[in-house]
Amino acid sequence: MSNLKIQITRNENKKEKVPADQLIFGRTFTDHMFIADYTEGIGWHDHRIIPYQPVTLDPSATIFHYGQTVFEGMKAYLSDDGIVRLFRPEENMKRMNNSCDRMSMAKIDEEHALEALKQLIEVDKEWIPSEPGTSLYIRPFMIATESHLGVSASLTYSFIIIMSPVGSYYKEGIHPVKILVESEYVRAVAGGTGTAKTAGNYASCLKAQEVADLGGYAQVLWLDGIERKYIEEVGSMNVFFKIGGEVVTPALNGSILDGITRKSIIQLLKHWDVPVTERKVSMEEIREAYRTGKLDEAFGTGTAAVISPIGELRWKGELFYVNNGETGELSKKLYDTLTGIQKGTVQDPFGWVVEL
Amino acid sequence: MSNLKIQITRNENKKEKVPADQLIFGRTFTDHMFIADYTEGIGWHDHRIIPYQPVTLDPSATIFHYGQTVFEGMKAYLSDDGIVRLFRPEENMKRMNNSCDRMSMAKIDEEHALEALKQLIEVDKEWIPSEPGTSLYIRPFMIATESHLGVSASLTYSFIIIMSPVGSYYKEGIHPVKILVESEYVRAVAGGTGTAKTAGNYASCLKAQEVADLGGYAQVLWLDGIERKYIEEVGSMNVFFKIGGEVVTPALNGSILDGITRKSIIQLLKHWDVPVTERKVSMEEIREAYRTGKLDEAFGTGTAAVISPIGELRWKGELFYVNNGETGELSKKLYDTLTGIQKGTVQDPFGWVVEL
Repeated sequence: MSNLKIQITRNENKKEKVPADQLIFGRTFTDHMFIADYTEGIGWHDHRIIPYQPVTLDPSATIFHYGQTVFEGMKAYLSDDGIVRLFRPEENMKRMNNSCDRMSMAKIDEEHALEALKQLIEVDKEWIPSEPGTSLYIRPFMIATESHLGVSASLTYSFIIIMSPVGSYYKEGIHPVKILVESEYVRAVAGGTGTAKTAGNYASCLKAQEVADLGGYAQVLWLDGIERKYIEEVGSMNVFFKIGGEVVTPALNGSILDGITRKSIIQLLKHWDVPVTERKVSMEEIREAYRTGKLDEAFGTGTAAVISPIGELRWKGELFYVNNGETGELSKKLYDTLTGIQKGTVQDPFGWVVEL
Repeated sequence: MSNLKIQITRNENKKEKVPADQLIFGRTFTDHMFIADYTEGIGWHDHRIIPYQPVTLDPSATIFHYGQTVFEGMKAYLSDDGIVRLFRPEENMKRMNNSCDRMSMAKIDEEHALEALKQLIEVDKEWIPSEPGTSLYIRPFMIATESHLGVSASLTYSFIIIMSPVGSYYKEGIHPVKILVESEYVRAVAGGTGTAKTAGNYASCLKAQEVADLGGYAQVLWLDGIERKYIEEVGSMNVFFKIGGEVVTPALNGSILDGITRKSIIQLLKHWDVPVTERKVSMEEIREAYRTGKLDEAFGTGTAAVISPIGELRWKGELFYVNNGETGELSKKLYDTLTGIQKGTVQDPFGWVVEL
């Protein structure tokens, strides 16, 4: 289908592999990378797989000054049957283009990007770890490369894919984390860039994370920037609560990221006939649920952890414990099912998995 | 005072100068740049002036993914007496550190940064144009350079200064522009990063600027992200209105940039005994002032234009004309005084100018 021509230059100086139990997230990269360049008036050109190497840019490049950049995060899984699987990769490419639109950046050809990714994985297949819980983390990203200090959209871009073998997120099994509800800093508001997967959203969150770290909290929970009462996201994940039998998650409101794990979980819950609602969820509602013993479960969802159970929430000095600080039954079932589908050990009724 | 050691490597391949009337903002750069590196646990090191050259970074560098970067904009002026002048440069370095704090980045030594800037200007002095209205635009910036995809503050940074000779902002004399009041997109809210001079704030504004461009508007005027009624900034400038004899500008509220031109203008107006107030300014108030004939003047303020008079405002289909679309008396006086102080032709009663 795809008529994409990719020039492949093999790396003659392959790196030594790092044992799976020594992998640190995002520190080790494979031997190759994909890159394509965009020039206004010409389009995308020079699609190539090359040895993993530095990027060279003029110090006036737009990315350094005005932050035009978007990224995606996805994973490839190698199962015992030797098959490599991707989880809904077309959704990542689609979202990347939505992000590009918000940031006034060139759009990718989604089909070409997927083709490039598949070829890159093929070239670096030996880098995919197969131990339980491991995967190959994939980072497609685009940067604005024009040498110009005027505040305007760049006329040139590079689309790059790098890959990093990652160990198990839960080395000692899935377990809940403590979360600090953020009351001072704001992640995003409607009309801003909160729905785009762009660098500025992450830089702005580091300050709040520093405060959370000091208190021994794994992540912050973001409230809306207007009334500071409605729940938005937790760290860089979407968030779900099970309250008195109903599963609720903040509705996409123009400032929340449209998570692929999030939408998969909603689909899975509906498939199981578990009541799930996308709506506004306030901290007052969480407090009330806690006080009346209805706060059954809480968990973050994202590509890295898949499901990250929440055992404790701190909000303005109040502490809400969830499920005695233990992983809830539904959280565990969702985790096992999703990771099972991703690994090919659980049947995929939705056609989510792409086998390479 | 400063005990900073800067290694200087001269450029043996100097570029040809571009005639002042052919300079385009931020396209031409001088022969040298300053760079220093930061490593957590060591601090700033390897302060050096080197030939202007590309920056080389690992594709996993934090700047590409999580947007930790801050910048400043300032100008050096060469006057007929051969003296090079900077305008309140210590304010830029101070603000840069405030931005670094918000973005969880390493702080610079402000005195060292000024010393580095002065030495860089000395090395590239021949690049400062002297024609009326011209200057040497200076761009200090810092980028996060660590090779790591984990979402956390980088442990390494580079602080870089590049310089670009710029022509006159007003080739045909100071003149008013048309401004579109933005109702869909939001620049920043309190708790976000609006007060920091960081890349993400600029990337997020490009989409609205695209719409403004299509309608023939020079810039957008940003409203607050919460009630969408109070004025924040215009494009990447602060904004002032003269209403019935009083000059008003939006108060610093946690989402507006603390502009150095802005604060200089407030000081100058007070020095002149012109009533000036920092407070909330709503679009309803501007409409009312327009309808009652009290909207005397409006102008943006920033390093690039110094004063940018506003001749027309469009808000939800309504048009407000300011001063018959001509530059107001006060706007002109502020422009002449500030640019005169910067060039050394008008006395500087505030000690703003630093002569090199």
